[in-house]
Amino acid sequence: MPKISQKGHNMPESPIRKLAPFAEKAKEKGVRVFHLNIGQPDLETPESMIDAMHNLEIRVIEYSHSAGIISYRRKLCEYYAKHDIHIRPEEIIVTAGASEAILFTVQTCLNPGDEIIIPEPFYANYNGFTTSAGVQVKPIISRIEEDFALPPISEFEKVITPATKAILVCNPNNPTGYLYSRDELEVLREIVKKYDLYLIADEVYREFCYDGRTHFSVMNLKEIEDNVILIDSVSKRYSACGIRIGSMISRNKEVMKTALKFAQARLSPPSLGQFAAEAAMDTPDSYFEKMINVYKKRRDTVVRELNKMEGVICPNPSGAFYVTARLPVDDTDNFCQWLLEEFSYDNQTVMMAPATGFYSTPGAGIDEVRISYVLNVENLKTAMICLEEALKAYPGRTQM
Amino acid sequence: MPKISQKGHNMPESPIRKLAPFAEKAKEKGVRVFHLNIGQPDLETPESMIDAMHNLEIRVIEYSHSAGIISYRRKLCEYYAKHDIHIRPEEIIVTAGASEAILFTVQTCLNPGDEIIIPEPFYANYNGFTTSAGVQVKPIISRIEEDFALPPISEFEKVITPATKAILVCNPNNPTGYLYSRDELEVLREIVKKYDLYLIADEVYREFCYDGRTHFSVMNLKEIEDNVILIDSVSKRYSACGIRIGSMISRNKEVMKTALKFAQARLSPPSLGQFAAEAAMDTPDSYFEKMINVYKKRRDTVVRELNKMEGVICPNPSGAFYVTARLPVDDTDNFCQWLLEEFSYDNQTVMMAPATGFYSTPGAGIDEVRISYVLNVENLKTAMICLEEALKAYPGRTQM
Repeated sequence: MPKISQKGHNMPESPIRKLAPFAEKAKEKGVRVFHLNIGQPDLETPESMIDAMHNLEIRVIEYSHSAGIISYRRKLCEYYAKHDIHIRPEEIIVTAGASEAILFTVQTCLNPGDEIIIPEPFYANYNGFTTSAGVQVKPIISRIEEDFALPPISEFEKVITPATKAILVCNPNNPTGYLYSRDELEVLREIVKKYDLYLIADEVYREFCYDGRTHFSVMNLKEIEDNVILIDSVSKRYSACGIRIGSMISRNKEVMKTALKFAQARLSPPSLGQFAAEAAMDTPDSYFEKMINVYKKRRDTVVRELNKMEGVICPNPSGAFYVTARLPVDDTDNFCQWLLEEFSYDNQTVMMAPATGFYSTPGAGIDEVRISYVLNVENLKTAMICLEEALKAYPGRTQM
Repeated sequence: MPKISQKGHNMPESPIRKLAPFAEKAKEKGVRVFHLNIGQPDLETPESMIDAMHNLEIRVIEYSHSAGIISYRRKLCEYYAKHDIHIRPEEIIVTAGASEAILFTVQTCLNPGDEIIIPEPFYANYNGFTTSAGVQVKPIISRIEEDFALPPISEFEKVITPATKAILVCNPNNPTGYLYSRDELEVLREIVKKYDLYLIADEVYREFCYDGRTHFSVMNLKEIEDNVILIDSVSKRYSACGIRIGSMISRNKEVMKTALKFAQARLSPPSLGQFAAEAAMDTPDSYFEKMINVYKKRRDTVVRELNKMEGVICPNPSGAFYVTARLPVDDTDNFCQWLLEEFSYDNQTVMMAPATGFYSTPGAGIDEVRISYVLNVENLKTAMICLEEALKAYPGRTQM
């Protein structure tokens, strides 16, 4: 039997999927599992998107342009302009989700062996794409004690080497929910300019900002236009994760020309999803206002209930729909598995994502979990009661 | 400005897209361009697929399982069983087109620097995926004089080295239309077994077989079950290229387990496309009978008309919807560009794919073109008249 590749061996397993078999078993036993482990919003997809499918008037599902349907890219430009991001259709490549946008970006910008700096904890799948491209992640730790703010410039400079090629940030952040301020982004700008690095920003949670705060895009950082690449997706924004429509955006002509060759090799992004995404562009602002309102209440519930629990620390982040919390347990990998395998309260339990999967520094995040607040407030409250009871009962509890 | 990657530099431009700007200009001048250059069938997508969209009953477009929706994979198993290919749902990963299936396969099975043998001419985008994975293509030439039949075993053995990891075939073939016989595939089996290689087969044109011949799948080669990986797609079969739904199939458990990690990193294949593809599984046999009939007439037209032209050689292939023909010209890259830039007959011209893009041996295929017969017979006849006139007028003609 021929061997599989080294890369295949090295590919990390998704930290979220690892627990799935245990959740299945819990359900088989009749236990209700609250899924706080995934980034799949429960809100309804805008009607306009479903309607676009109901009213589909094509007779052949054809390839689109490799960079995406031009009418969709034009509409995207209008959408971005509303967010004060001014770009042209040829600065966009429509991709199969943000995932493919990251893949194209890494392949276009980095050689195997190059280094990419990512503040950790970070979105676990970045590990997959960097492993698959043979790129080294250089993490710099953002601390729960500082609400996961951007580490100071000195921390970046400590890890910069001649092999450093890029900095990758997710803003608002998955898994911490932290919303980087304009000042923090200006710090990034300074580093990027000084060392001539790529600045790759995953802004898929752009709309998810709370407490009156607004999102500042890396696309508006001055004098580093050729360094910046924006990763985006319609998945979270329109509660449509299965649509697999994202985009890679840059004003750097050589980057876009090169990325287009990777895009051509896979022919085109999904056409049906593009039709739906184009229809979504007309979603009224009221949809987002309502959505933000709903998520803010959920965040408030989760943060309040978590901080009430003895020994639990949870920052109050201003973005996305995640919190990363510290729990008084020995090892959240064990704890999360135990929750599914051995625990139930009122025949209910909680599934969360152990944070070690979001760190690349070994041992980091061992007492942290990511909680996605993608359930309604009532269910979140019940889930928090479960968690509180579980913390009382867990044999590996570290403080009383 | 930071540099782009070496891989980005090396990525080939699509040989089909290179000519696109010249086609645009021809159209701007009011010239009608017959597109014989692309693999986009003109036939209608089955109604069941469009109906599935019209009748969509979901409220949230959710992620699917990373390996694809289970009900769809079960239906796929039934589809394959009809073609005497017996597999189980866990042996399938649903992908964003055959493109992603090839990407997962190459990443799972080959290390950078490994070698993959591909009979050439071959589907140009294989170059993209191998370049992107840092894998070396070792071409072995199949000759137009032999109708592009599989080269003898001795040709394979000449290029096998310790770095050889896999053989990739496309059957029926793009760009030659050649349908490998069972005997030829048994030859491949012998080599694969002797050297313990992966055998990767792209069978997206399975249904497109003419002259009463039937397709024999690599999945039915005995004793090499762990070596074989099948690449498939619904694009061509259902005239739905924009749907981006393919699959990677293998009985090798380790390969599938590893490929699933790559699949998890990109979360899920497109959901809307999967709904449509699942509906397509109920397409009646009559759809295919009609389709094969249509394509056979087209092939007959193109092959007959081409062979009537002085100095043109065109085999009569039994599969897919392509022919690769030899033309009496100095260089088909020049000729195809000239057709768009300088030639017209009755205000019409022809766009074809120069064959050099389908070879990796430098200079090979310089007097060949790939013609896709994806137009109706009447248009094909007119296009052939154009081509005949063009060959008379072209300054770089090599024989009279």
